[in-house]
Amino acid sequence: MNIAVAQSGGPTCAINASLAGVYSAAQKEASIDKIYGVLNGIEGIINDEMVDLSEKISSDVNYQLLLRTPSAVLGSCRKKLPDHREKSEIYEKITEILRKRGIGMFFYIGGNDSMDTVAKYSDYLRCNNIDDIKIIGIPKTIDNDLCETDHSPGFGSAAKYVAATVQEITRDSNVYSIPSVTIIETMGRHAGWLAAASCCIRANGEAAPHLIYLPETTFSIERFLADVKNEMKKHRAVIVVVSEGVKTAEGKFAAEEYQSGQKDVFGHSYLSGIGKFLEKLVAAEIGCKVRSIELNVMQRCSSHIASLEDIQSSEAIGMAAVEAGISGKSGCMMTFVRESDMPYSYRIDTTDASKAANSEKFFPREWINEEGNNVLPPAYDYLMPLIQGELHAIMKNGMPLNFVI
Amino acid sequence: MNIAVAQSGGPTCAINASLAGVYSAAQKEASIDKIYGVLNGIEGIINDEMVDLSEKISSDVNYQLLLRTPSAVLGSCRKKLPDHREKSEIYEKITEILRKRGIGMFFYIGGNDSMDTVAKYSDYLRCNNIDDIKIIGIPKTIDNDLCETDHSPGFGSAAKYVAATVQEITRDSNVYSIPSVTIIETMGRHAGWLAAASCCIRANGEAAPHLIYLPETTFSIERFLADVKNEMKKHRAVIVVVSEGVKTAEGKFAAEEYQSGQKDVFGHSYLSGIGKFLEKLVAAEIGCKVRSIELNVMQRCSSHIASLEDIQSSEAIGMAAVEAGISGKSGCMMTFVRESDMPYSYRIDTTDASKAANSEKFFPREWINEEGNNVLPPAYDYLMPLIQGELHAIMKNGMPLNFVI
Repeated sequence: MNIAVAQSGGPTCAINASLAGVYSAAQKEASIDKIYGVLNGIEGIINDEMVDLSEKISSDVNYQLLLRTPSAVLGSCRKKLPDHREKSEIYEKITEILRKRGIGMFFYIGGNDSMDTVAKYSDYLRCNNIDDIKIIGIPKTIDNDLCETDHSPGFGSAAKYVAATVQEITRDSNVYSIPSVTIIETMGRHAGWLAAASCCIRANGEAAPHLIYLPETTFSIERFLADVKNEMKKHRAVIVVVSEGVKTAEGKFAAEEYQSGQKDVFGHSYLSGIGKFLEKLVAAEIGCKVRSIELNVMQRCSSHIASLEDIQSSEAIGMAAVEAGISGKSGCMMTFVRESDMPYSYRIDTTDASKAANSEKFFPREWINEEGNNVLPPAYDYLMPLIQGELHAIMKNGMPLNFVI
Repeated sequence: MNIAVAQSGGPTCAINASLAGVYSAAQKEASIDKIYGVLNGIEGIINDEMVDLSEKISSDVNYQLLLRTPSAVLGSCRKKLPDHREKSEIYEKITEILRKRGIGMFFYIGGNDSMDTVAKYSDYLRCNNIDDIKIIGIPKTIDNDLCETDHSPGFGSAAKYVAATVQEITRDSNVYSIPSVTIIETMGRHAGWLAAASCCIRANGEAAPHLIYLPETTFSIERFLADVKNEMKKHRAVIVVVSEGVKTAEGKFAAEEYQSGQKDVFGHSYLSGIGKFLEKLVAAEIGCKVRSIELNVMQRCSSHIASLEDIQSSEAIGMAAVEAGISGKSGCMMTFVRESDMPYSYRIDTTDASKAANSEKFFPREWINEEGNNVLPPAYDYLMPLIQGELHAIMKNGMPLNFVI
């Protein structure tokens, strides 16, 4: 039997570690012959674009580089499949290609939409009594908003980047003797996990960030300004972390709502991110030194400060997916089940992919303070195990070496 | 004799390494008693705010943490002194405080403005026949725009951060199969060294960045769009690096010039950075997937990926400053003199601080291609030695440990 593995959705620092895990376990499994890497997600199956992974990952050094390379080496896609009861052609095509290549197991590493693909294709297989093909989902997302799993591969490294960077920016912001406000914008359109991760800087005694705003509570300009003024009484350099997706009482994105009608120089409706907007707000209403910083894609691609725990468990969940497939499972998503925070322990399990598809795991309201402007100790206890350890880059000529297919 | 050391100007990853170097050399010097750390630059002399550094840097671990901590642990200031011939009070005050504390040598780590202070105070000392106080400047700036020195402490680490991050963003940008443009904005209001440093990613075979724009050549929208369209024919994911300070043919900042008259939601004149502006331009004129990323203060504070060469040579130049002071020098700035690119070798020398003050070292025009949209091999040869080696953070609880006074 041959197998295939693909990557989908937004890149992370750990999606290649899960690919490595699938490859590593499959190589050791006697019943598996070829291990195909599918290019650009499910599109690569439909277009029959695959590479033989054992030709590409031909040495232990390559394997180690793969663990340390950000983004998705096989490429990605954003494609949602139709309902197979209404439109079955694409499912027939996928099945035809998989059979042509002798592929009995397909591993799909991705987020929400990818789990939707896993659920739909496994439903198609079931309805058509096809039992020589199995499909298994492997979670990943820096947003940590996948349901049914304690956390998602990729989140730990993004969290570690956010925390380490917020700490460095805190050092930077404290350099001048005049009062200042620094606003750091993280990713997270709907869930606040990444902004919350900034609380990890308290591990070594930092007081910052003084304010943390998540999409899970209502954001208001008035309360924000009052919060900032209040913190300025206590701290010379106030550090604010804000999720890109904070929302008004009407449930609309604050950045869009407060800037509606603004046009840019090209006459298009102009929207700066929430960080830049709040910078302008503080400048206009408080008038102190203020700066905003968007952590942007560095949150998801800064492998040079990846979490060892994240990379190792992402590799392990890839390996476990192969075992699950061998044991006959299909239509499932692999999950982490936390057994304890401290000392941290977890086991890997499976859940029905349809349960994880098309739903989002929000940051718990009870982990946010009453004022809605910071996170509470249970958040810290949850987050800390996920950022532990480092996996240093393999350097050449002063630069991290990457694995490229 | 006691000595004092202060830090000034914008923070960097290496300004604390130079402080460590001064401390380390001074501790070994029998003629030096107390080593004062002056808080907030020259202001801390005027206000007599100093700490005894041997009480603060009390262990080897602290010393190692100091080498690895970004920003300026003593705090900083931005203060320009008046001409002592017109206004001598402040110089008298500085002299009074230094004498009261028995300080015979004052080391000032900083950029342009700090070297102006060194030059002016040493001129005051000379004109007033004061020879029991010496002042020595130690360069630092991530912008690398200080004259008289091969490079400035802090630049190598910023360059390494820029290069490593541009490489990671290049991985990230290559994940989708559709054409895209990614625009990365670096610091550098007048000099393009940091944007140019992105060329170091070619060390391991990258083709990116496909376009690099520096303030040293004229920037035009028309040529930029033609360049991007041209690169899109060759590369699916086009990577552009642009200095914040690129200028139009009239010598005005392009970002300001092209957006003049734009008002934000608060009615203030609105200026996004050049990266965001070019993102909107590409969206409007080319219409492809486009993203802009501002590297912001992370360029100057990302100690977790500091250049070992930078940190070690910044420490060494601090040590050499103490030797220079002991040998009787004053009014000078310490410099690096490059002896060879490959193998890299340099020596430390001194120059008159007034030669470095109030002037800027620009990126050489002959290191930029004729089209003005990329850098040439001599730039790479100059830059590569400066980003070599890593100094890993000392981690605790999954986070880098910092030294805080």
